[in-house]
Amino acid sequence: MTHKIAILGASGYTGAELIRLIATHGGMEIAALGANSKAGQSMASVFPHLRHLDLPMLSKIDEIDFSGIDLCFCALPHKTSQEVISALPSHLRIVDLSADFRLRDPAEYEKWYGNPHAAVELQKEAVYGLTEFYRDQIATARLVAGTGCNAATGQYALRPLIAADAIDLDHIVLDLKCAVSGAGRSLRENLLHAELSEGYHGYAVGSVHRHMGEFDQEFSALAGRPVAVQFTPHLIPANRGILATTYVHGDAAQIHQVLADAYADEPFLQVLPYGEQPSTRHVRGSNFCHIGVTADRTAGRAIVIAALDNLTKGSSGQALQNANLMLNLDETTGLMLAPCFP
Amino acid sequence: MTHKIAILGASGYTGAELIRLIATHGGMEIAALGANSKAGQSMASVFPHLRHLDLPMLSKIDEIDFSGIDLCFCALPHKTSQEVISALPSHLRIVDLSADFRLRDPAEYEKWYGNPHAAVELQKEAVYGLTEFYRDQIATARLVAGTGCNAATGQYALRPLIAADAIDLDHIVLDLKCAVSGAGRSLRENLLHAELSEGYHGYAVGSVHRHMGEFDQEFSALAGRPVAVQFTPHLIPANRGILATTYVHGDAAQIHQVLADAYADEPFLQVLPYGEQPSTRHVRGSNFCHIGVTADRTAGRAIVIAALDNLTKGSSGQALQNANLMLNLDETTGLMLAPCFP
Amino acid sequence: MTHKIAILGASGYTGAELIRLIATHGGMEIAALGANSKAGQSMASVFPHLRHLDLPMLSKIDEIDFSGIDLCFCALPHKTSQEVISALPSHLRIVDLSADFRLRDPAEYEKWYGNPHAAVELQKEAVYGLTEFYRDQIATARLVAGTGCNAATGQYALRPLIAADAIDLDHIVLDLKCAVSGAGRSLRENLLHAELSEGYHGYAVGSVHRHMGEFDQEFSALAGRPVAVQFTPHLIPANRGILATTYVHGDAAQIHQVLADAYADEPFLQVLPYGEQPSTRHVRGSNFCHIGVTADRTAGRAIVIAALDNLTKGSSGQALQNANLMLNLDETTGLMLAPCFP
Amino acid sequence: MTHKIAILGASGYTGAELIRLIATHGGMEIAALGANSKAGQSMASVFPHLRHLDLPMLSKIDEIDFSGIDLCFCALPHKTSQEVISALPSHLRIVDLSADFRLRDPAEYEKWYGNPHAAVELQKEAVYGLTEFYRDQIATARLVAGTGCNAATGQYALRPLIAADAIDLDHIVLDLKCAVSGAGRSLRENLLHAELSEGYHGYAVGSVHRHMGEFDQEFSALAGRPVAVQFTPHLIPANRGILATTYVHGDAAQIHQVLADAYADEPFLQVLPYGEQPSTRHVRGSNFCHIGVTADRTAGRAIVIAALDNLTKGSSGQALQNANLMLNLDETTGLMLAPCFP
Repeated sequence: MTHKIAILGASGYTGAELIRLIATHGGMEIAALGANSKAGQSMASVFPHLRHLDLPMLSKIDEIDFSGIDLCFCALPHKTSQEVISALPSHLRIVDLSADFRLRDPAEYEKWYGNPHAAVELQKEAVYGLTEFYRDQIATARLVAGTGCNAATGQYALRPLIAADAIDLDHIVLDLKCAVSGAGRSLRENLLHAELSEGYHGYAVGSVHRHMGEFDQEFSALAGRPVAVQFTPHLIPANRGILATTYVHGDAAQIHQVLADAYADEPFLQVLPYGEQPSTRHVRGSNFCHIGVTADRTAGRAIVIAALDNLTKGSSGQALQNANLMLNLDETTGLMLAPCFP
Repeated sequence: MTHKIAILGASGYTGAELIRLIATHGGMEIAALGANSKAGQSMASVFPHLRHLDLPMLSKIDEIDFSGIDLCFCALPHKTSQEVISALPSHLRIVDLSADFRLRDPAEYEKWYGNPHAAVELQKEAVYGLTEFYRDQIATARLVAGTGCNAATGQYALRPLIAADAIDLDHIVLDLKCAVSGAGRSLRENLLHAELSEGYHGYAVGSVHRHMGEFDQEFSALAGRPVAVQFTPHLIPANRGILATTYVHGDAAQIHQVLADAYADEPFLQVLPYGEQPSTRHVRGSNFCHIGVTADRTAGRAIVIAALDNLTKGSSGQALQNANLMLNLDETTGLMLAPCFP
Repeated sequence: MTHKIAILGASGYTGAELIRLIATHGGMEIAALGANSKAGQSMASVFPHLRHLDLPMLSKIDEIDFSGIDLCFCALPHKTSQEVISALPSHLRIVDLSADFRLRDPAEYEKWYGNPHAAVELQKEAVYGLTEFYRDQIATARLVAGTGCNAATGQYALRPLIAADAIDLDHIVLDLKCAVSGAGRSLRENLLHAELSEGYHGYAVGSVHRHMGEFDQEFSALAGRPVAVQFTPHLIPANRGILATTYVHGDAAQIHQVLADAYADEPFLQVLPYGEQPSTRHVRGSNFCHIGVTADRTAGRAIVIAALDNLTKGSSGQALQNANLMLNLDETTGLMLAPCFP
Repeated sequence: MTHKIAILGASGYTGAELIRLIATHGGMEIAALGANSKAGQSMASVFPHLRHLDLPMLSKIDEIDFSGIDLCFCALPHKTSQEVISALPSHLRIVDLSADFRLRDPAEYEKWYGNPHAAVELQKEAVYGLTEFYRDQIATARLVAGTGCNAATGQYALRPLIAADAIDLDHIVLDLKCAVSGAGRSLRENLLHAELSEGYHGYAVGSVHRHMGEFDQEFSALAGRPVAVQFTPHLIPANRGILATTYVHGDAAQIHQVLADAYADEPFLQVLPYGEQPSTRHVRGSNFCHIGVTADRTAGRAIVIAALDNLTKGSSGQALQNANLMLNLDETTGLMLAPCFP
């Protein structure tokens, strides 16, 4: 049985990545592609790498007939997403890739995003889409909120450690190295090749990046007390990848064991042998996340490094994994592509 | 039914690319991986991006039991390949990715590669592996010789034009831009990141690159007279891709029509609408080849540009496509992955 | 004696490159920096790499007092330039880096740029700024028109050959590989790092790039008959550099000799030993142009490859070299920086 | 007056960078270039970007006549350096760029480098070459030991803070992002473009990188007690640059003030306005180091980020700055080149 799906925001990178993954899925048919600014164009003209696929034309979102659609991916910009989703038919199951439904507390949302939430009821209903930790709720949810790509990476490194009380909650440093596709296809001077290539820098320094809201929400809930990590993302001259270097206080061997146990049965989370290091190049274009644990020479301290592809496991791959759960399909369908190296 | 296959030379880029493609193939089981220099290691240690796969350990080639193997991919260096293949059991069907069996004439082989051929009988038997033009012979061949990646790209742009007498055979310029993975994983100073990144240059200038032997052989056979193209490859700071810009004398509209007709039913060769340009980024990691045709402002001249991924359509993807034919499988099995962009 | 200069269009790449070069010049003082869109900002905020320099604030062009200025560099966009320069005081000597005064024939200008020229009198007066070939006229000119960066590269490879009648004028192919900074700091989707990195393509295919107008004008004047080269630029994932691969009919040894003789006394044009190849990485950040000549295996054909840095020798370095001539300074002042490799 | 200098190890990146800088120095004449493995070759063949310079041929080190040489730069590999320097004439002043004389304690040297020191007397005599902090000793030293490039970057961020007791010595995390030229021109698989480009990873994880020996030595001496920072370097796909992100406990405003005061008169150390972020692209090819300070949202914590070019300020620029001091020249001679951006 083939499920009919729609993708809203198909002209952005996460939309294109969804199509790339669904192309070999087998159980999904792309019935509609919404992209208001490029309505009337073909995907072949917007993303020539998808020209071999037989896809519907891009159309305005309010002209899409959702009656036969089983599930809708919403890859729209933040704020737009909540407006569009509010207007979608209530039968529709939705996987949202924006930031709009990640934070459960409307006050936290407003604090981090600067505007009051326009769909508070939906916000309450939404399930946080970090698959491995919300699997059961996702399977039955109507609306799943995809996580931030940085937030996913950091949580894969740290959640089991917080849950197992294996690290000191007051000394967590999260230093992230992020590839540029995470910033999307927007026209900004600092995303130009000539600006970015051959250089790198930190941004949102001071733990003020919006994905902090997710770390605060998730880590504090897990610990049963407020947890405030230090988090600095850096923009790296590469297209895909997030590498999260986390500095923690705890016993490295125990930390490795906790992570290995936690992810033993996970198809996509791979804990490397103790002391080995992950690299973004080894997960590129795939839904895998590699995690390495090493002891610091200072006793009682450890470094946990996680690597994933921001567009795949950090965004569209996660979304497809959640959609598979919601449609009662094998969770890994369309997601077992090996990384593309070199 | 699952076919058992072996890959010799599994520690190089084309070996790894074969495994990446076969991972989602469904009809092949990788029964043996040969790599003399890294025998005893796991693929996870040699290519960590493949660590999620359940693969045999790397072993010495002469310790492999070929009795149950249906087909063997040989991704060894030039010259080594002819020695190894000569010693393989005669029941084994072989797809060779080296240069050893591409040239039918032993004298031409010696001219371009500098040593006499050590397996002349096999050389005679080998079928040239440019799938779309040798399909029937490949299907029944015992030994298929994968083409040079540059040679494949240039031939996709030009073969139908020579066959249709649509261009002047004495004025063909082939300017190629090649990504670095085509040079393999060998340790050479000019392949270091610090040397290559942010710079580019021509090499083998003067139409003296070894892939010229293939152009000479194929184009002359096709034309029924000697054809000597001018061919300059350039090394570009990117990992995957070949872009062949060919300057020809002929009518652009007719040229476009000839190519469009020739490739109308080909699953992987896509002729773009007249006047559109291909880009390597739009075929990256895939088995597709995009071809664009544009008229020059000087009447009677045209530019034909072809783009493919040297590791996929230019090498391992071609090899798998040929293996599918040899095993009577659907030719596209394992090869319909969409390009990985961005 | 220090000359007071102004730079209009200081917020673009060529403006910044001028300042980088002038910083070690010794004989020039930057008295005014014009940049309408960023007026009121400091250069340190627009280009933080120049923060160590003591520079004037950016100001609106019509608020600059030109009374004490000896020479003005105009690095504004095409079309804007002719309007601004028309309004500048007539005592001012000007080096324009835009395309506005490169073509002497108003009809040619309109053909290539799509609008009638708004300063036809100035257009007549302007001297074409290819230093080595217009040195005397540049020294006494009031207005010098900087060449296109592609046009400069192609001309360095070909002018002496046309002048010496050493090549067949009807068979000239110019295949250029251009780094991205040549496109400036403008916000266009295809200049984003995620779009450009790891991919490359041809553009303005069919010999329709605007710099063709310069080739037509200069080559035809030199030959005394119309010369129509074939010219295809390609966008390469690198920040600086142009590599021009030219395919010509002629005797390679003679061609090498003609070029070596022509440039024997030139401080910046370096003809490599016969058969050696230039690379953009070896001229990066410098005012040098390297030129290599190699015979094709087909008798009577040759390949001439020229490499330069589009921002330096192709634009701002050329402009400074011309300004030195106009101010009766040593032509090489501020321009002997060694290339920055790796 | 021109000082005659020699450069040993001229075929490596730091040797080439020295020559690039000295090319515009004015007060130095390069009298000898030593490079055992490439003796007999010209610099133009080893580093074509230096072909415009009139340089001596590369020669074997033991064939160099040091009698007229004033100062010798030694850019040889670790361990080789101590052997070569032991054999140099005692009149010669030496700036060593290797790791051999950075650690004063022979036991520490053996611990980090794995072999006993072969020139213990010289080791005692050597002055640590972090210019801004050892200026007086460097001026009169016979042997100056260039610092590690990572060690320099981290110390610029932290030394004044430790000296001023402005941060908690037990909670210092140093997360470094290093470009590939820091690894030199050696042939290693992980330095290939195809391996490195488009990916990044941590190495020497666990605070076990050799430059830790320098941090231990310098920070502990400064604090008067053992200081053990946590330090993880990461390899980034870029050619030049080190970005050190340091996480400290202390008052951000005070930290900014301490750094601004400490470096107020330094020509190359630039403390950015409070809250601004440095980027490696803005120091590329120059001797500048940019430092930014930002408060973390958690009170009492701060992030200090330092950026420099590993080949210039981190190595050859530092060496030239020290040589200027030793020769009683203006410290900034040959070092005021503006960064090369884009």
